[in-house]
Amino acid sequence: MYERSLTKPDGRALVLYSRRPIPEGLQATSPGTEPPGTKTHLRWHPLRGEWVAYASHRQNRTFLPPPEYNPLAPTTDPAHPTELPAGDYDVAVFENRFPTLTERAEVPAPPSIVPTRPGKGACEVVVFTQDPSSSLGALPLDHLELLLEVWADRYRKLGARDDIDYVMPFENRGVEVGVTLHHPHGQIYAYPFVPPIPARELEQQRAWLAGHGNGLLEDLIVRELADGRRTLYTGDQAVAWMPAFARYSYEVWIAPRRPAPSVADLDAPERVDFARALKTVLLKYDGLWSKPFPYVMVFHQAPTDGEPHPEAHLHVEFYPAYRMPGRLKYLAGSELGAGAFTADTLPEEKVQELRAVEVKLE
Amino acid sequence: MYERSLTKPDGRALVLYSRRPIPEGLQATSPGTEPPGTKTHLRWHPLRGEWVAYASHRQNRTFLPPPEYNPLAPTTDPAHPTELPAGDYDVAVFENRFPTLTERAEVPAPPSIVPTRPGKGACEVVVFTQDPSSSLGALPLDHLELLLEVWADRYRKLGARDDIDYVMPFENRGVEVGVTLHHPHGQIYAYPFVPPIPARELEQQRAWLAGHGNGLLEDLIVRELADGRRTLYTGDQAVAWMPAFARYSYEVWIAPRRPAPSVADLDAPERVDFARALKTVLLKYDGLWSKPFPYVMVFHQAPTDGEPHPEAHLHVEFYPAYRMPGRLKYLAGSELGAGAFTADTLPEEKVQELRAVEVKLE
Repeated sequence: MYERSLTKPDGRALVLYSRRPIPEGLQATSPGTEPPGTKTHLRWHPLRGEWVAYASHRQNRTFLPPPEYNPLAPTTDPAHPTELPAGDYDVAVFENRFPTLTERAEVPAPPSIVPTRPGKGACEVVVFTQDPSSSLGALPLDHLELLLEVWADRYRKLGARDDIDYVMPFENRGVEVGVTLHHPHGQIYAYPFVPPIPARELEQQRAWLAGHGNGLLEDLIVRELADGRRTLYTGDQAVAWMPAFARYSYEVWIAPRRPAPSVADLDAPERVDFARALKTVLLKYDGLWSKPFPYVMVFHQAPTDGEPHPEAHLHVEFYPAYRMPGRLKYLAGSELGAGAFTADTLPEEKVQELRAVEVKLE
Repeated sequence: MYERSLTKPDGRALVLYSRRPIPEGLQATSPGTEPPGTKTHLRWHPLRGEWVAYASHRQNRTFLPPPEYNPLAPTTDPAHPTELPAGDYDVAVFENRFPTLTERAEVPAPPSIVPTRPGKGACEVVVFTQDPSSSLGALPLDHLELLLEVWADRYRKLGARDDIDYVMPFENRGVEVGVTLHHPHGQIYAYPFVPPIPARELEQQRAWLAGHGNGLLEDLIVRELADGRRTLYTGDQAVAWMPAFARYSYEVWIAPRRPAPSVADLDAPERVDFARALKTVLLKYDGLWSKPFPYVMVFHQAPTDGEPHPEAHLHVEFYPAYRMPGRLKYLAGSELGAGAFTADTLPEEKVQELRAVEVKLE
């Protein structure tokens, strides 16, 4: 992997990654000149016992591009710079202009009636490819392997910072989950705390490890493979399956068989197989109804809080937006108010539909 | 409050409630003849440590009414019965035909690779009024007081059942949260466990009570009233405010000042004032953009698990669908994958907009 770190005119970091050497002389650009937002802080929600992030600069975004303007495409007209320079590279990562969390977060004004703190951390945009009409699943396997190395690099670099305890790469895909920019990209949120859902998963994994001597997800994978009814991809190193306890229709998980704690712990053969699992799932999704399949995809992995995490086992979770063609899954009273998920479908049945989609990996 | 319990032809319960005596001879109806769904079970999500409900009968609903047919309106043509009889009553409660949770839940088939159990509990529909064009906020104060008595009655009756540990009334309002039936109605989910979000809130409240000697929400209300920047309704018995740690734009909470554990513990003056607080909030919501304001509204209260809950303090939480006119709040990577809420707005600012809406309570 080749890598080049640059600084944008407004001070934000840009890192280019490539399978080939990156040409000299690339200049980082920015669509705006004003400094990046710093007005972000956290407030403690005492009943839920969690931090809520307030990025009030986000509601005043001054950036109103014409509809044909794509800020994630390489710059072609120097008079209208985008977020990326033109040049030969595969993947780009840069700091969000209007971040929810940032190293630059100011100390919040007068304390509120609950504890507050600056919104430290990082929000990065990961541009998967220069091609605006591509998609994560359409990328060649070696491009996906590079992307896994990029996520690993960001995990290491962000995780090394004192103000960051948890690094979560994710992709929101489709207008159905609020995305209006169709250029293939994901994001990385790097939190100054271990967020509630990973914290809960790690707590459960710790208890299992203490009680059983091996990992919870490791055991579940063994059982899923033995059961065999919900598997989608079974490689030597990585597997993809619909968990027996799937909450969403078409919910799929991907994990290495070995309990690698993070994406940075995958070795080369694991990365190769993980990329194959990922591409298989993505092509099956898009093939299911012969159109781009909207989802939220998240990486759960070991915190970077300086503590040992033998319980952590890297995995990707997909939350699809639709429960059947044209029917969105709405999160309402039971899910939002009680935290109790209600599913109308069984993973044993839904997996048949994805299994029936034939895919070609290369 | 007058009350009449009936049984539908398909065996489901129907209870009518009224401010006036209910006429004799009303017959319970049902739009269908087939027995209510029983194919519902729970599976244990070992990583999140929570139960997921699978109601597979829901995906095969046979009921496809014509668009003008309203199953929640009183029956006018005996050849096409709705869920409700014609007659003089104010509020009706009946069991959902395709419940996620039901007393009739069958023992699930062969165990999966995770623990499973029948989907015991109850799912009830609460029809707020016979008038299909009304809304919760448009109902007269004494009708809202009756409704609080209805919720209290359901809390007591459902909570007394051995298979029910938590009773949660809620309303999903608007197509934005997945509702296609516009007749004013809410639902009650009665769970065979204390669901994750109330469980978390109660855990936090217990810890606070143990450490401070008084209730967490009680203390927060005192502080909010002293601060004064986020209050919307300040009655002798009940208050409505936007919490300092609001996660949604326009998120409002309503609670009695006294830490009444449940809606069944409100005394008559508290019910009167709570109804005023509720109507105030609802009228402000609908007045904000001069159109029906979509939201999810949930009641959090004491579990009915047979344990003492001195920490519980009844409150209503509203989760609005929009963060500004025409802009939905999407829950995506950070909210769904990390459980970390990101807000673009501050409650101190948003509350000003609701305060500016003038309302007439009667």
